[in-house]
Amino acid sequence: MPHIPLESHLPGITGLLEYRKDTAAPIRELTQIILRGPSTLSEAERELIASLVSSRNECRFCTAAHTAAANILLGESETCAQVIQDFEHAALGEKMKALLAIAALVQQSGKNVTTTAIERAKNAGASDREIHDTVLIAALFCLYNKYVDGLASVTPNEGAFYQKLGERITSNGYNRLPGGYDQLKNQEV
Amino acid sequence: MPHIPLESHLPGITGLLEYRKDTAAPIRELTQIILRGPSTLSEAERELIASLVSSRNECRFCTAAHTAAANILLGESETCAQVIQDFEHAALGEKMKALLAIAALVQQSGKNVTTTAIERAKNAGASDREIHDTVLIAALFCLYNKYVDGLASVTPNEGAFYQKLGERITSNGYNRLPGGYDQLKNQEV
Repeated sequence: MPHIPLESHLPGITGLLEYRKDTAAPIRELTQIILRGPSTLSEAERELIASLVSSRNECRFCTAAHTAAANILLGESETCAQVIQDFEHAALGEKMKALLAIAALVQQSGKNVTTTAIERAKNAGASDREIHDTVLIAALFCLYNKYVDGLASVTPNEGAFYQKLGERITSNGYNRLPGGYDQLKNQEV
Repeated sequence: MPHIPLESHLPGITGLLEYRKDTAAPIRELTQIILRGPSTLSEAERELIASLVSSRNECRFCTAAHTAAANILLGESETCAQVIQDFEHAALGEKMKALLAIAALVQQSGKNVTTTAIERAKNAGASDREIHDTVLIAALFCLYNKYVDGLASVTPNEGAFYQKLGERITSNGYNRLPGGYDQLKNQEV
């Protein structure tokens, strides 16, 4: 049960974004820019970073939602599962592994990001902007994970819920739609 | 030395907010709303939450900046120092101590926020909105701390720098001023 009264049909982050819409607006905007805006990192790569960080923070809601998004964008479900289990052995190039390693360090503490980790990414071809964005995505998902679990929002168990949410954030992005998440209201989730 | 090229006269968060202004805008907006917008928590109380979380994350830049802001708002420097050292024995009421306890748990992990911690705050008169805002402020400062330290932005040692920054964020808030932080450019900091 959530620590504060949230709409019972809006689990995870969805109820929080409706609880205080004024703070939700810039959170949505930041997410839209950094995960969906122009970037040399694909949307799938950025969702993999979000999934890894959420997984390391043991935030089940965010992990399931962003895994669903990554899977839809990639057209398969093996890569994200591998990233969460052991990204160094995932079917990804060295640059992406190096960026995921930076994200994993940020999840622990910003202070844990070493020059060695940064050099690895640069040697693999990562740009300054890609490194910047990786750190910011990782930091943003720490915010999300702490927000979602810190208020004990509801975590559905049904995979169908996350599939629906993943479809929404891959097709519509993170902007608020008219009616917010109310479209999820009467679904069997 | 920062991990990516940042303006050398813009330490800590200041250079990052100028590095990518499109992502900086919603970060600034969220901070302005949650730390300076209408609230039953005073601006000083909200800066105490920011200072405590930054201190627990060992982010020297953010701790010094928000401690300076809290001190200016309170008109004294003992309370914030006490909060950072041991908030349970600070000269604060039970409600504020209970909210700081929640913030400290969010800093560790959202999952660490217990029903007991929430009940303590509610019994001390905290509203649902105050609990929500405490969790979101704590989560936001985890983002800031990880962003600032994850990219190894410069941390000045001079107290005068943080005093100036504290004056700015207490008088002007977190909105971007014309010229950004360039007004800090030629200061002896």
